[in-house]
Amino acid sequence: MRIALCQINPTVGDIAGNLTKHLEFIAAARKAGAELAVFPELSLLGYPPKDLLLKRSFVDDSLAALEELAGQTRGLDVIVGYADRNANPVGRPLHNAVALLRDGQVASRHFKTLLPTYDVFDESRYFEPGRRDERENLVEVTSAEGRHIIGMSICEDLWNDEQLIARRLYHENPIADLMSVGAELLVNASASPFVLGKHAFRLELFAAQARRFGKPIVYVNQVGGNDELVFDGNSVVIDGSGKLIATGKAFGEDLLIAEVGIPKLLKPTEPIGMPADYPPPLSAMPAASAYAGERTDMRADRMLSAPDSYEEADLEAVFKALVLGLRDYVHKTGFKSVVLGLSGGIDSALTAALAAEAFGPEKVVGVAMPSKFSSDHSIGDARDLAKNLGLNFHTIPIKDVHAAFESTLAGVFKGLAPDVTEENLQARSRGVILMAISNKLNHLLLTTGNKSELAVGYCTLYGDMCGGLAVISDVPKTLVWELSRYYNRSKGREMIPQSSIDKVPSAELRPNQTDQDSLPPYEVLDGILFRYVEEEKGPRQIIAEGFDEATVNRMIRLIDRSEYKRRQAAPGLKVTSRAFGFGRRMPIAQRYSP
Amino acid sequence: MRIALCQINPTVGDIAGNLTKHLEFIAAARKAGAELAVFPELSLLGYPPKDLLLKRSFVDDSLAALEELAGQTRGLDVIVGYADRNANPVGRPLHNAVALLRDGQVASRHFKTLLPTYDVFDESRYFEPGRRDERENLVEVTSAEGRHIIGMSICEDLWNDEQLIARRLYHENPIADLMSVGAELLVNASASPFVLGKHAFRLELFAAQARRFGKPIVYVNQVGGNDELVFDGNSVVIDGSGKLIATGKAFGEDLLIAEVGIPKLLKPTEPIGMPADYPPPLSAMPAASAYAGERTDMRADRMLSAPDSYEEADLEAVFKALVLGLRDYVHKTGFKSVVLGLSGGIDSALTAALAAEAFGPEKVVGVAMPSKFSSDHSIGDARDLAKNLGLNFHTIPIKDVHAAFESTLAGVFKGLAPDVTEENLQARSRGVILMAISNKLNHLLLTTGNKSELAVGYCTLYGDMCGGLAVISDVPKTLVWELSRYYNRSKGREMIPQSSIDKVPSAELRPNQTDQDSLPPYEVLDGILFRYVEEEKGPRQIIAEGFDEATVNRMIRLIDRSEYKRRQAAPGLKVTSRAFGFGRRMPIAQRYSP
Repeated sequence: MRIALCQINPTVGDIAGNLTKHLEFIAAARKAGAELAVFPELSLLGYPPKDLLLKRSFVDDSLAALEELAGQTRGLDVIVGYADRNANPVGRPLHNAVALLRDGQVASRHFKTLLPTYDVFDESRYFEPGRRDERENLVEVTSAEGRHIIGMSICEDLWNDEQLIARRLYHENPIADLMSVGAELLVNASASPFVLGKHAFRLELFAAQARRFGKPIVYVNQVGGNDELVFDGNSVVIDGSGKLIATGKAFGEDLLIAEVGIPKLLKPTEPIGMPADYPPPLSAMPAASAYAGERTDMRADRMLSAPDSYEEADLEAVFKALVLGLRDYVHKTGFKSVVLGLSGGIDSALTAALAAEAFGPEKVVGVAMPSKFSSDHSIGDARDLAKNLGLNFHTIPIKDVHAAFESTLAGVFKGLAPDVTEENLQARSRGVILMAISNKLNHLLLTTGNKSELAVGYCTLYGDMCGGLAVISDVPKTLVWELSRYYNRSKGREMIPQSSIDKVPSAELRPNQTDQDSLPPYEVLDGILFRYVEEEKGPRQIIAEGFDEATVNRMIRLIDRSEYKRRQAAPGLKVTSRAFGFGRRMPIAQRYSP
Repeated sequence: MRIALCQINPTVGDIAGNLTKHLEFIAAARKAGAELAVFPELSLLGYPPKDLLLKRSFVDDSLAALEELAGQTRGLDVIVGYADRNANPVGRPLHNAVALLRDGQVASRHFKTLLPTYDVFDESRYFEPGRRDERENLVEVTSAEGRHIIGMSICEDLWNDEQLIARRLYHENPIADLMSVGAELLVNASASPFVLGKHAFRLELFAAQARRFGKPIVYVNQVGGNDELVFDGNSVVIDGSGKLIATGKAFGEDLLIAEVGIPKLLKPTEPIGMPADYPPPLSAMPAASAYAGERTDMRADRMLSAPDSYEEADLEAVFKALVLGLRDYVHKTGFKSVVLGLSGGIDSALTAALAAEAFGPEKVVGVAMPSKFSSDHSIGDARDLAKNLGLNFHTIPIKDVHAAFESTLAGVFKGLAPDVTEENLQARSRGVILMAISNKLNHLLLTTGNKSELAVGYCTLYGDMCGGLAVISDVPKTLVWELSRYYNRSKGREMIPQSSIDKVPSAELRPNQTDQDSLPPYEVLDGILFRYVEEEKGPRQIIAEGFDEATVNRMIRLIDRSEYKRRQAAPGLKVTSRAFGFGRRMPIAQRYSP
């Protein structure tokens, strides 16, 4: 049968806009001869709607949009994501749902069973799990070849396979249950965010289940950035032998039309029971992986953004994820242009390059703000970068502002030695200048800090942390360098000045300062950071892996004590298995010393 | 039997410190002749430990502390809160648990069944619900009078009563189940945070269940501030007729010794079944309440901090909650003193008064930072306040800094008219000065904004929003005034200058500015805010209640559009049923217009 995978980029909460987008994709799918069109999870609402779901009017408005969409749907079947009310008076108030639209009506409603509640996911906050009898999630669809029984599932429902998930969080496997009651084809509506290395695991997981049951899988993912999360699209169709037969665009909207062959027809009322070889012998399965569903606290090594393991395709994927996340955040918040400080260093250079790719260089304003500690090469590198990328460029020295702060504070600080306070004053003077430009000229301010410095607090709250979006705050410093080299390679010329890549990192807040005055080399820091934050390993384990004991303990102390800064950080785009922010919820006033 | 309610103030993650505190309370309980000592929920860890629970070493260390505590426990039974591992290989990795310690051993382990996952609670992120057979949560304890069967439950387990909870989120009622299998006495270990009006509902709920089953209830709550949450203590013992027979301190640690009479003895193996009058006739029950458990999205009217409904006891409770939350946040983060800006207005005056109560005035530094727009009365009121309270006081004019910013930006801003940018520059100049004082002198900076202005964005990011703790960010402006009057009344003199209370509110960022230039009167704003944020009502409903349509729509737009500022706000102390911050998770890049 001919299926249209409608890989859309919805805006969270924009019910009217999302409805229009559905109608456009349905029209195109019909034109292409599709018999079934499938949209992503919560497609009318945009994922994740978060606490908008607690507003009665939001749910009312989206249910009205569902009816309107149904009324305009004829000539093909459509599967669309929405939030339904729980009809049972006991239990959480909503279901995470898809509806089958047919002949101008909502023909049936199907609810998600497995509700991710970890990392960035909060689904148990809103949703009651769906019915336990998977016969209710079978959908009969008629194609030119005949009648087919589709097994409907939503995102996480597909991620609890006993063979591939090391620690299953849920006691049910809706996919096995769907198969046991007669599904001939699996359709999964998803909103699965990008994480470095995750798509490779998705393919392995989906193919293994297709092979296990001998049935095709149609997986439709959302695309686009919504706050911290970037959805990568990459919708796929896998045949009953586990072969990938079609893939949607990575990081872009797509209408993918696929002919899906269905092995054999069964009557829906005739349960087929478990296949004779269930469970399949282990030798027939791919190697078991430690990756637990959408979860990020336990998974295969290749899911982890371990330093020095990046392949060209990884770099391309992260770069594209950041460009998409940046573009969508800025546009979806109503801005058209951005401003950022250019220090001459590599973090601001990479952020500027991402912005130039996202908006075109004419929409990007770079500002160099030299102080008496700025080296000549810094100002030169900032200027070269702006020229190479074609940015708007200003130079605004902070000398007078900094002097005014020092003289204003001279009375209170009398007799006290200079310390980090004076360094922070410089960073904060720059923050205020950039925010003034943002306010006056309506450019969204981008903050340029990387994950390594945000981890250990090597950044100034209300200073270089000012900004509406932290573009690379989930990118460790070693990956910042890799992405910068990748960018220059992909452009075939030196867009980011080589000297910005090669120079010794420095905040330039006092004479001859370098980052390594107070931090270990970034290769070491990132190695510790990766193990402590992404892998949740304790210091004993990290030391046992060969890191210096004093360094590990000092870095962990810095990471833990910097939580108060991160609590006030701008939202940052998630690209690793554990980003600071919404998916890592640490107390501030706590005294655990691991 | 003689029971010790150990109402402790643990620090999150401070396993060693919490263990010591347990030993001290146990020693005192033994000395007082207690036969059973009961600690709050997760008492060894401190509630809420949040993502510390994802660290293997944290769980290991706390399990080791449990064994150590057990080894030192003899001569009485002890019930202590901790996190246990889920022995089942499928399901979430932990249980929210209490252990019975007896004769140097962990005698039994009991798991929470109902896991709150709403508002500020994330328990489904970490915990698997406990066993479904409540016989496993019966504990046999021997007292001087004989053997008693105690039914153990943890916090939310006690909050799903069919008679009093309008929309139950859970399908089980562990309390009814405990009773049906023979519990003679209910013991509930809790960590229930303060919300204005909540304790009155607790008493009603507990008493109704005691009466319904004819059995006493011993409820032991945590006390103290942990980040945004303030736990009020208020542990209680209720007899089998629903009468309150003992109450622990509000807002302080307490060891409460209570003689609990147990109506009759039953053998634990002899299930008593439902009482003959189950369910009791509605007329025998208190009026059904709409309050849904610890949830805050549906509850009785008196749970809500509706403007103009404050009684003296409410004001006292909120004031004490803020003092305790402030003191604990500052001390638990390792600070000893605080600094704040004093504008002469009511918000900073109330914050200063709270700080003086929390730390003593000698630990509080107030800084007036006049600009050319500051009125004489503002500076005078700030000085009077500092004098009345006995604070350290500095005056630091921002004239030079502000002028330096304006001249530094003159080139970029050439030809552009003054707007809010110049106002923000003043607020940010003050923020930088206060942060410099904080950095140099190691005082924690308090930010002084109230809930009303944080709601509509009438505040400057990186300006007056600078600070480590937002003391009154969950206090609506109308309640700020009430609390200020309450404070002066309670002191019997004018601590906060009457002119600060009486004056027309103004940010004083341009000539003759008042808040009401751009906002409706605060009584109106707070009425809308209460309905929109606490009650989750939509604009149509609010307008139907008599508010002006244009005002409602404008305020709601402002509230929604200010989410980006709140995302970067300092943590604030929660006192209402819905505070901004951790318990209200709104997307930023969203376009829902209700």
